[in-house]
Amino acid sequence: MEFSAYFPVWSKLTPQQQTLLRENTVLRKVSKGTPIHSSTDCTGLVLVRDGQLRAHILSEGGREITMYRLFPRDLCLFSAACIMNSLQFDIHITAEKDTEFWLIHPDTFKHLMEESAPVANLTSEIMGSRFSEAMWLIEQILWKSLDKRVAAFLLEESVIEESDNLQITHETIANHLGTHREVVTRMLRYLQNEGTVKLSRGSIAITDTRKLRTLSET
Amino acid sequence: MEFSAYFPVWSKLTPQQQTLLRENTVLRKVSKGTPIHSSTDCTGLVLVRDGQLRAHILSEGGREITMYRLFPRDLCLFSAACIMNSLQFDIHITAEKDTEFWLIHPDTFKHLMEESAPVANLTSEIMGSRFSEAMWLIEQILWKSLDKRVAAFLLEESVIEESDNLQITHETIANHLGTHREVVTRMLRYLQNEGTVKLSRGSIAITDTRKLRTLSET
Repeated sequence: MEFSAYFPVWSKLTPQQQTLLRENTVLRKVSKGTPIHSSTDCTGLVLVRDGQLRAHILSEGGREITMYRLFPRDLCLFSAACIMNSLQFDIHITAEKDTEFWLIHPDTFKHLMEESAPVANLTSEIMGSRFSEAMWLIEQILWKSLDKRVAAFLLEESVIEESDNLQITHETIANHLGTHREVVTRMLRYLQNEGTVKLSRGSIAITDTRKLRTLSET
Repeated sequence: MEFSAYFPVWSKLTPQQQTLLRENTVLRKVSKGTPIHSSTDCTGLVLVRDGQLRAHILSEGGREITMYRLFPRDLCLFSAACIMNSLQFDIHITAEKDTEFWLIHPDTFKHLMEESAPVANLTSEIMGSRFSEAMWLIEQILWKSLDKRVAAFLLEESVIEESDNLQITHETIANHLGTHREVVTRMLRYLQNEGTVKLSRGSIAITDTRKLRTLSET
């Protein structure tokens, strides 16, 4: 599969714009755990071909919270925040799996945004969808207790991994949810007592999906 | 002052686009406290001429938190969420002061976005800046204690109102910050004991701005 099949509005670009875009895009391969973008660097736009990336923010004290994940065909604007003056926050992107992605040069994309309404609207659409996720996160943090958030996170992970047996540490879950490892461990023990998960070294097995879902939704 | 002087990219529109926009925009006057937009209604785009609006979200239990405020020349996209498929969250907008604003028909704006790169890029810029505010809010909620958030809120209010004597109830502050009135009252009493504010019925006087600022920043 080619870049043109992955870039959302490819067919709406002029031949010149297509050439410009192709000439200023490179394919990168990174292994799991590699940091791809940090803070306000202007890395470029990331378009995922294969694998999985994680975007998170970082507190001064080093705590993390996951903002969103990027899967194949997802385009990330915030690794090129420099192209938009109004974007002022620091995001970090790391490979959660071995990942192959295209990196689009920020100046090229900015140029296309300025002359092409389809590219500009694509940008708005993506921003709108990330914004909606951020709003969802605000509601979760404000109004949902942590047991429900842990339950929802485990269910989401099991969908992504297509498995009920998750190879994940308590520390990693804490970094996704913006809290401390100890708090997650306590919560997981509570869920184990409730019979919804079974904990073992380095892994968490979901033993009662339906009960876990009920908990996450109430 | 005319609409054309308030609409950010007016000079980049064609004469036809200008006519279309003018013909599908109405001027509205509302008094303080009036709800302007609720939930997923497609009210239209709001461009503030004079006054002040507040955008907030609402929990199922009725708790509120302020997302952002709109001042003269601010354009609000989220009161026309229908024009963007990717925007999926419910926002409420209320007049915080007597307010005059233009309401742009959503279909008209959508049409302009599709054919004009400047309008599409304006949309991205606004969305980016709202997004940055939402990220700031996430960081506040996650990583800042409530005393600092109350301090920062009082300072922001005194800048907006150009006064150190704020006519505001504890309930209102709670609704801005997404917490309960009792919690705000406790926090204000703590600030009063610290000598930074003086509480009286229906008003809060800032008595030591510098100390309040130090508190809000640490």
